[in-house]
Amino acid sequence: MALILSGKKIASEIKGEVKARIEETAAKPTLAAVIFGDDEGSLIYARSKARAADKIGINVEILQFSADIRTEEAVSIMTGISGNKAYHGIILEEPLPENIDPFPVREAINPAKDVDCTTAGNIGRIISGEPVFLPATPLAILEILKKYRIDTNGKRAVIVGRSRTVGLPLANMLLRKSPEGNATVTVCHSRTRDLSKITKSAEILIVAIGKPGFVNRDHVSKDAVVIDVGTNYIDGKLIGDVDHDSVEPVAGSLTPVPGGVGPVTVSCLLRNAYKAYRLSREM
Amino acid sequence: MALILSGKKIASEIKGEVKARIEETAAKPTLAAVIFGDDEGSLIYARSKARAADKIGINVEILQFSADIRTEEAVSIMTGISGNKAYHGIILEEPLPENIDPFPVREAINPAKDVDCTTAGNIGRIISGEPVFLPATPLAILEILKKYRIDTNGKRAVIVGRSRTVGLPLANMLLRKSPEGNATVTVCHSRTRDLSKITKSAEILIVAIGKPGFVNRDHVSKDAVVIDVGTNYIDGKLIGDVDHDSVEPVAGSLTPVPGGVGPVTVSCLLRNAYKAYRLSREM
Repeated sequence: MALILSGKKIASEIKGEVKARIEETAAKPTLAAVIFGDDEGSLIYARSKARAADKIGINVEILQFSADIRTEEAVSIMTGISGNKAYHGIILEEPLPENIDPFPVREAINPAKDVDCTTAGNIGRIISGEPVFLPATPLAILEILKKYRIDTNGKRAVIVGRSRTVGLPLANMLLRKSPEGNATVTVCHSRTRDLSKITKSAEILIVAIGKPGFVNRDHVSKDAVVIDVGTNYIDGKLIGDVDHDSVEPVAGSLTPVPGGVGPVTVSCLLRNAYKAYRLSREM
Repeated sequence: MALILSGKKIASEIKGEVKARIEETAAKPTLAAVIFGDDEGSLIYARSKARAADKIGINVEILQFSADIRTEEAVSIMTGISGNKAYHGIILEEPLPENIDPFPVREAINPAKDVDCTTAGNIGRIISGEPVFLPATPLAILEILKKYRIDTNGKRAVIVGRSRTVGLPLANMLLRKSPEGNATVTVCHSRTRDLSKITKSAEILIVAIGKPGFVNRDHVSKDAVVIDVGTNYIDGKLIGDVDHDSVEPVAGSLTPVPGGVGPVTVSCLLRNAYKAYRLSREM
């Protein structure tokens, strides 16, 4: 049976480190979580981040605005928040309502406050090699691999999913010339043919395709490391992209959902928030 | 024997289109090619671009500065050039001398003049989906595939090389949800184990590793499309990264060196220069 790669202990370690550093500082780091509209999932997620943040001395203000505005107005709102010295970091909760183009709204975030690494400049720095912030979910995956001493050097990593927030930045991060990089990386997606043949070539398989239970034992080689990034709510229950019961007897190790990548992601985001606070002090 | 994918005809088609459009305009698009130091290769390459540009009505000014300056001075020089309205586009010739950190010099380029797509913001836009410019070499590769009607949809593409200017941006471009994307992409590099096993899985194999004749028939599957991005000078002769004679009997099609990706790259760069000129008119 697979070793279960629990994220809970890693998450509390990271939060403990951040908390200790914040206790040494005078002011309180403050994040703005910006929501356009009233998407229930965005609100729930923002509130859960606010609770986790509060426990370690970070303040999260949830700023909610009408969905019923034009892109220019949303950009103007974001520009205002971005220029406000009270906020050290900014999270833009997505998806935005369909009438708002997300790109210019993201670009209105001050790169030094972009704790979610959502601006093009910060994403590009993953490739050009001088990142300010790295995106929280890919960072959480690398953190789990590191804490469990799973070496990525020269390993075959296969990523299922090509999203802007997980699959693509993670691929670029795993390819970097760094101790947490140097992997040979394949990215698969909905157009991929012979998917199971490719996923079976993976020593490290990361699944972030947003389809509950999509990856099963037919996709996984014996002893592979399987990282499940899925967060699908079905009847109020959180389900991953990996069919856990089917994969567990085959994989060498496996992250659970819940309790795997999710909590580590939140703690990596809060560490980024502390970094943004430090950056603001240096300016 | 492989079909030879000649770049010359494609390059002259693209240049013809750009020339026709420039003839319709009043002013002359002008590029600054910025060189720090006196690297012979950089000078030769800048001059060859200037000659090609001149033939279609684009002016290239080669601006050469001392290698013996600090990073801050180089940034200040670049900021000045970037703000100069006489230049519609800017090319920074790399590598820079070792005493100059290239990152802040690149970042000093106005994104709207960044015809080589070297700033982090423009690289990031490949992932965030709203590119202003795409980098010329990856663009040339996609152009060759398109002109020869080689579909990338759902195909297995393997890239050998993870450079900031070719391998990484190309991987992200081939993964985009676009007619020239939608491939399943693997990136290999110096740390990759079992390289030939992976390259043999490629329907489209792109080699940009900077090692003359590195890829041979043992790396290539029957009928694969092989794109050679290598530009290695040996005894004054231009040699690709693919051992042409060894691969030609196996591959389905193959770009030559010289006369393959190189000339198309220059024409794509000039097309970007025209785009930068158009952008400057809209502002």
